[in-house]
Amino acid sequence: MTDDEQLLAANDAFYQAFNQRDFEGMDTIWARAARVTCIHPGWNLLSGRAEVLMSWEAILSNPANSRLVVGGVTVYVHGDCGDVICRELSGGAPLMATNIFAREDGGWRLVHHQSGPVAIQAAS
Amino acid sequence: MTDDEQLLAANDAFYQAFNQRDFEGMDTIWARAARVTCIHPGWNLLSGRAEVLMSWEAILSNPANSRLVVGGVTVYVHGDCGDVICRELSGGAPLMATNIFAREDGGWRLVHHQSGPVAIQAAS
Repeated sequence: MTDDEQLLAANDAFYQAFNQRDFEGMDTIWARAARVTCIHPGWNLLSGRAEVLMSWEAILSNPANSRLVVGGVTVYVHGDCGDVICRELSGGAPLMATNIFAREDGGWRLVHHQSGPVAIQAAS
Repeated sequence: MTDDEQLLAANDAFYQAFNQRDFEGMDTIWARAARVTCIHPGWNLLSGRAEVLMSWEAILSNPANSRLVVGGVTVYVHGDCGDVICRELSGGAPLMATNIFAREDGGWRLVHHQSGPVAIQAAS
């Protein structure tokens, strides 16, 4: 797989963990060596692995949270860092997400996720 | 200056260009070689230098736009890529921003900006 394909696969694994409410999978995806941060829609910044993973545990165990439909994925590799920008559709509400990955242990690991509401969902 | 300091200075230059309505400064900050993307609060994804800079021209020339008060800035360098996460206060409305920089021509240039509303502004 090329760098881009590996990055895309890492991003897919993130959303698969979300949609399958797979906390172990989610835990694996987030970096261990690099500092991690996360901004959920409308939330303030979460900083550090413990705080970020605790938020995911709460989100994944909340039955009220809808599955995310992901589209319009673009990936960019800048050396040791990879950015993925994509749309998320959550229970009809359009969001845009920025996912930043860093190389760790030979793979791409998530170091930052920001998702926030947008006004109108663009066509795929 | 260390890598972190240079990254912080690049982020400061971005907000200075914003607050001084300095379009030329804004143009300089965005990368030329790398592909650029931008998600303004509530907007859909803007992609490519022309589209992104056109949006800044409209924003910087709109007298209704308030200055941004920036705080809680954290910088992370991952090799060739630098991430800056910070709070923005726009006319009393709290936002969180992710700014991704890449190395270009010996400096840090902005490749992606996402800013979105958050519920409550955390203390600085």
